[in-house]
Amino acid sequence: MTKDLVILAYSGGLDTSCILKWLIEKNYDVICYMANIGQNEDFEKAKQKATSIGAKDVIVEDLRKEFVSNYMLPGVQMGLVYEGRYYLGTSLARPCISVGIVNAAKKYGAKYISHGATGKGNDQVRFELSVYSLWPEGKVIAPWREREFFTRFQGRADLIEYAKKENIPVSATPKEPWSTDENIMHISYESGVLEDPAAIPPPGIFKITRDLKQAEDYPSNIDIIFEKGLPVSLRIPSGHAKSLVISEPLALVEALNKLGGQHAVGRIDIVENRFLGLKSRGLYETPAGTILHLAHLDLEAYALDREVLRLKKYLQDRMADFVYNGFWFSPEATYTRKCLELSQESVTGTVTVQVYKGNVVILARTSASSLYNKELVSMDVAGGFSPEDSTGFININALRLKEYARFSTQSDK
Amino acid sequence: MTKDLVILAYSGGLDTSCILKWLIEKNYDVICYMANIGQNEDFEKAKQKATSIGAKDVIVEDLRKEFVSNYMLPGVQMGLVYEGRYYLGTSLARPCISVGIVNAAKKYGAKYISHGATGKGNDQVRFELSVYSLWPEGKVIAPWREREFFTRFQGRADLIEYAKKENIPVSATPKEPWSTDENIMHISYESGVLEDPAAIPPPGIFKITRDLKQAEDYPSNIDIIFEKGLPVSLRIPSGHAKSLVISEPLALVEALNKLGGQHAVGRIDIVENRFLGLKSRGLYETPAGTILHLAHLDLEAYALDREVLRLKKYLQDRMADFVYNGFWFSPEATYTRKCLELSQESVTGTVTVQVYKGNVVILARTSASSLYNKELVSMDVAGGFSPEDSTGFININALRLKEYARFSTQSDK
Amino acid sequence: MTKDLVILAYSGGLDTSCILKWLIEKNYDVICYMANIGQNEDFEKAKQKATSIGAKDVIVEDLRKEFVSNYMLPGVQMGLVYEGRYYLGTSLARPCISVGIVNAAKKYGAKYISHGATGKGNDQVRFELSVYSLWPEGKVIAPWREREFFTRFQGRADLIEYAKKENIPVSATPKEPWSTDENIMHISYESGVLEDPAAIPPPGIFKITRDLKQAEDYPSNIDIIFEKGLPVSLRIPSGHAKSLVISEPLALVEALNKLGGQHAVGRIDIVENRFLGLKSRGLYETPAGTILHLAHLDLEAYALDREVLRLKKYLQDRMADFVYNGFWFSPEATYTRKCLELSQESVTGTVTVQVYKGNVVILARTSASSLYNKELVSMDVAGGFSPEDSTGFININALRLKEYARFSTQSDK
Amino acid sequence: MTKDLVILAYSGGLDTSCILKWLIEKNYDVICYMANIGQNEDFEKAKQKATSIGAKDVIVEDLRKEFVSNYMLPGVQMGLVYEGRYYLGTSLARPCISVGIVNAAKKYGAKYISHGATGKGNDQVRFELSVYSLWPEGKVIAPWREREFFTRFQGRADLIEYAKKENIPVSATPKEPWSTDENIMHISYESGVLEDPAAIPPPGIFKITRDLKQAEDYPSNIDIIFEKGLPVSLRIPSGHAKSLVISEPLALVEALNKLGGQHAVGRIDIVENRFLGLKSRGLYETPAGTILHLAHLDLEAYALDREVLRLKKYLQDRMADFVYNGFWFSPEATYTRKCLELSQESVTGTVTVQVYKGNVVILARTSASSLYNKELVSMDVAGGFSPEDSTGFININALRLKEYARFSTQSDK
Repeated sequence: MTKDLVILAYSGGLDTSCILKWLIEKNYDVICYMANIGQNEDFEKAKQKATSIGAKDVIVEDLRKEFVSNYMLPGVQMGLVYEGRYYLGTSLARPCISVGIVNAAKKYGAKYISHGATGKGNDQVRFELSVYSLWPEGKVIAPWREREFFTRFQGRADLIEYAKKENIPVSATPKEPWSTDENIMHISYESGVLEDPAAIPPPGIFKITRDLKQAEDYPSNIDIIFEKGLPVSLRIPSGHAKSLVISEPLALVEALNKLGGQHAVGRIDIVENRFLGLKSRGLYETPAGTILHLAHLDLEAYALDREVLRLKKYLQDRMADFVYNGFWFSPEATYTRKCLELSQESVTGTVTVQVYKGNVVILARTSASSLYNKELVSMDVAGGFSPEDSTGFININALRLKEYARFSTQSDK
Repeated sequence: MTKDLVILAYSGGLDTSCILKWLIEKNYDVICYMANIGQNEDFEKAKQKATSIGAKDVIVEDLRKEFVSNYMLPGVQMGLVYEGRYYLGTSLARPCISVGIVNAAKKYGAKYISHGATGKGNDQVRFELSVYSLWPEGKVIAPWREREFFTRFQGRADLIEYAKKENIPVSATPKEPWSTDENIMHISYESGVLEDPAAIPPPGIFKITRDLKQAEDYPSNIDIIFEKGLPVSLRIPSGHAKSLVISEPLALVEALNKLGGQHAVGRIDIVENRFLGLKSRGLYETPAGTILHLAHLDLEAYALDREVLRLKKYLQDRMADFVYNGFWFSPEATYTRKCLELSQESVTGTVTVQVYKGNVVILARTSASSLYNKELVSMDVAGGFSPEDSTGFININALRLKEYARFSTQSDK
Repeated sequence: MTKDLVILAYSGGLDTSCILKWLIEKNYDVICYMANIGQNEDFEKAKQKATSIGAKDVIVEDLRKEFVSNYMLPGVQMGLVYEGRYYLGTSLARPCISVGIVNAAKKYGAKYISHGATGKGNDQVRFELSVYSLWPEGKVIAPWREREFFTRFQGRADLIEYAKKENIPVSATPKEPWSTDENIMHISYESGVLEDPAAIPPPGIFKITRDLKQAEDYPSNIDIIFEKGLPVSLRIPSGHAKSLVISEPLALVEALNKLGGQHAVGRIDIVENRFLGLKSRGLYETPAGTILHLAHLDLEAYALDREVLRLKKYLQDRMADFVYNGFWFSPEATYTRKCLELSQESVTGTVTVQVYKGNVVILARTSASSLYNKELVSMDVAGGFSPEDSTGFININALRLKEYARFSTQSDK
Repeated sequence: MTKDLVILAYSGGLDTSCILKWLIEKNYDVICYMANIGQNEDFEKAKQKATSIGAKDVIVEDLRKEFVSNYMLPGVQMGLVYEGRYYLGTSLARPCISVGIVNAAKKYGAKYISHGATGKGNDQVRFELSVYSLWPEGKVIAPWREREFFTRFQGRADLIEYAKKENIPVSATPKEPWSTDENIMHISYESGVLEDPAAIPPPGIFKITRDLKQAEDYPSNIDIIFEKGLPVSLRIPSGHAKSLVISEPLALVEALNKLGGQHAVGRIDIVENRFLGLKSRGLYETPAGTILHLAHLDLEAYALDREVLRLKKYLQDRMADFVYNGFWFSPEATYTRKCLELSQESVTGTVTVQVYKGNVVILARTSASSLYNKELVSMDVAGGFSPEDSTGFININALRLKEYARFSTQSDK
């Protein structure tokens, strides 16, 4: 009798290794799926580990370009910031990985997809809502929400014991007292000792950005070129007064990550609201993403009409929630994304940015499509503008206020 | 026959000095009104100048405490940021000054209020809408919008010539090639050489914040204490491991301005949309305001319910537009302000902030009124949470997405 | 050993009678709770039925005044309409009943609350979210979501068989082929033959409003008096050119229900979006609610400032969703309700309405607190208004549009 | 020397006839422009009148199809309703007429466009903002805002006297004591005796809809077919159980106007907020528009995803304001219109409507593109739905509420 096939989102770590073994125990065939989205990982070693545990196959797929071009940079274009501060590095990666794993499930004729996300977090939601959107007839096995599993493995100790018993290799280096999620866009840190919002995080947490004290001592000026809101090119200093132009999206992000890292750019420490209703504290470092977002924000204000900017802002805030909550493939996000892209038709131009000591300083911007009219705004030029018109404009705007004032005074009597 | 009395918002500068003379020429009695809202100004000298030109009286009123307590700090509490970046330092000062000048007009029985704001800017609107709200039967004389005046004085040269002819003292130091507005909250710089958004501003513009290169080499950690969203107290290092607690609002702002200035905090360079429909480029430095806003943002995310935060965010964005456009005393701003204050009931607590090299780094926060529940969020504690519930939550959320996916696939065929 | 006590929301119908028996079987003590919110029900008979089945006690509580004053009329004041058409008659009743049953649970020391709502509907959510908000440590038993129960009782036939076996009286009259929810505000009809949105509903469904064909042949003119947005008084024709004034809230609603019913007012047939993600078709009749809402809408537009109206509209749409989804006691609804009440300070006045042939025709309105200024608007009076100001107002508004037009033309070339 | 050419928006009435004469007096060449947008007007007679007064030429252009297809029906598709009640019949006509007159101005090489709209109303704004958008270099002469004109003609009597003196024919029938604007979509009535919002309008005002007392005594059932939100076809009873299908847009609207008129459908009496800040009272009759809007609203709720519906609702409310205020050709309206059209991709289907005694009763609706899933919603079918999932859904939603409740109770102590 053929066994049912499960595609397991595999990380190489303790949790998903134990889940792999447990699924095999439960009489499933298991193919492990690993997406390379830029995390620091020894994929070959993980592959061997999965095979040794009993995976029928291990797929490693490089999704870095896919992630940068179809998720991270559109996130910049749409201006996605969650609760005013978080650039959604993890949230944007989940739908990208989901496409990869669903494609694998369909290709190999799997019945189930499984993952190691826990029951309190956002990632289970993002992952599963994406999977169900892409593959409505598919099914998900989430062991950390299965009573049998979570009562058997009540903590890390139980997993280690199980691993030892089942000859699953366990890393010798002790786990950091927090959890981490890494991709080309950002690294996040949460839980463990970070759970207390009143506790200043211990030093040495961050991996890709330097501490401010160690930041480079010179500023770096760069030009970022946007087309319809998308970053398409980067001009960056390259020693001896030369500069380099980078246009391949992945290379552009990598270059900005390196530069931002050297200049200590892109760290935040926030308390955020999870979709499940909990609040949680997280640290994030997002060097390239931070630089790109701030440059885009500047160009957008320059190029867009005032009222379009406001409509776009409303939609952007809604979209950030959709993405954070895992609804990337939903009707509302599909619709909002189209509207946001429409808003960016004229966001084409160049922003000159200084990166220095943790700061992203906007120096200048140019755009052939901006509605900025230097002549019109100039105090020295009368062109197209009669000062007397302002009197009428103010008087008419004051009409409603005077009525209100008269009425308010009246009713106070 | 008695002359009509005008209260003139007087700055001591060339423009309002000429306007003063011109109003007297036009057969008005003129009382000059100067509000001290923290700008760097020799009020005594300005007073003498106005008197020498022919002002019937000169009123100098210290509105700094009024401005800080009733405009700047409520702006922090309400989270007012215009177009995502500008903390509204000038916009908040206008209604404060308007109250002062309207009170003077009523006290002295004036028929008119006059000012030196130009016809393309926001300040004429803010000033006049405030005046008309507070004094609906009042009238405003805006010489820069009077054909007789603006055809006679077509540029600075005409004013200087007039001043010389009329024995109005003209400052020997040449004017900076941009215009400036200063108060305890911020200094703004615009027009002149700054008008070109593509031109990197010349060095040496900013007055109260150091350049990043000159910023102090040590970080300063401070605690900011909020009650119902208002900053009420500041704990700040005070040499030799001691710290100082400051609670008087004006002193608190002054201390943060000094600290932020030393650490190069609070500069921006933006293109913004004016109420009249023009775009303009401005530089701002807002040291204390920047620190307070970022700390408040952090505490708010920590203390407020997720959905209340979103409602508040919508109202806050609307309010920022109202204030920028000069509608502080309007029915909509009065209403929105009440709603925003209501939202802050639980925003009480302390934020620990590191100010360093232009950065405002949030280190930690505490609040007795936060909905944060460490036990609930902890990965190690099951308290009040059944992982199986998440399965139902996800499945129900997926219902709508599956239907949409099925339908979309169908309609593609 | 003492049994755990359950308070069961009891309706007297087949479902909750079987649930009552089933709970007793499961070894619970059960007290039945019946709220009188205006439904057509023989409470005495239901009481006897529950007792005969084995209820330890039966509580019948008259919540009609509570419902009208604290839920229905505030719903009018807040302008709550779901998806543009549904006045939330059922949604508003759920939190009211929840307060009653939670109070009973606390009074009698119950451990559980139980109800007969099914697993696909909104009411389970509204009921339970209200219960958990009011009684966070309480627990809910929802038999229709318990596998043991819903696999045993797969349809009405199974319930009838069980009832017969257990000597539970079953009504002789066959059940209508749809389900109904009734209270003083409305009656809803859904499911069964109504499930098909393409099927015209069979005649004879509606209970409190006449068909248009049978509507009275004369119009009735009434005055509705509002204070701060709340309907406080009704002037209604009372035979022979006399009129009656009714101010007691319940009596006011009953009088309008009767009048609206005679005139065939307040029916709708809609497809709505449930919180669980399904769409469902429902019919509603809401005579008094419809009249009150339309009168309130008219007064509000008359009395409120234009911009306050828009802010209020945004909040009102959000609040309608909160209430529909069961979040009456949530932080967001508590907050929004306060804001909406604040907006109604000036919504005081009288609306004259003609009720006739299904129509609610607004005839006239008066309000001492309206910002309407007849003199200002009059084409014959110049008061406080200079036509030349409009030129400036238009020209300044056109500035931005001209720039956009110039730019658009340019970029087309 | 050649005279400057003015294109005058001419109505044939007293005001624009006097303006025509006055412009000639002021030494302009004047071409009169009359748009036929469905108003009841003797264009030939008006033409002769203009010629007799001295117009160089009179253009009569039939814009009815243009107006229906490009303004009225898109208004239905976008769901445009101002302040919850007004379907924008006049607001939608202004940009349509503006296109016609600007085209004429360009064709004939005019320098000016002139109109007879007064200085307090919306139409001057709508007209001029449209003209300036379409023709940024154009100029507008608005005599009612010219001091010379409005001081000379202070009321109707002055105009009549001038007309008599200048041999301008004056209608023998006395003017109605209110003003009217008519097109194929609606007729509006305002000012004069209607200005008092507390005065019940005199009988006999309305022109295209019968009074309820005179409405037909039988109901008419019709089918309205929509494609992507646009009404594309109408099935209407046509005697002896036959029905007629009408698809040509203008004919469709005319048929519905006739039917709605017979059944007394589409009157409102409201106080609205004008763009200039005044409130004004207006009566409108919009028979076809009302039927189409209510049918569209029903289909939309049926066909659209819940969350897309909400996004669309927000944009629709904004768009209604843009259109009311005259910003049809603005960047924000251009953008919002595209977004709204995008939202209508799936709003395809048929709505069956009963028109009877002033009521538009929705009877049924079908749509191949609706997300409605009868099987899923059915109480009798378990398909794709596990009742246990609802428990998890509710419990997770309750998490945040329980925390809030615990916290609130705590803080009360």
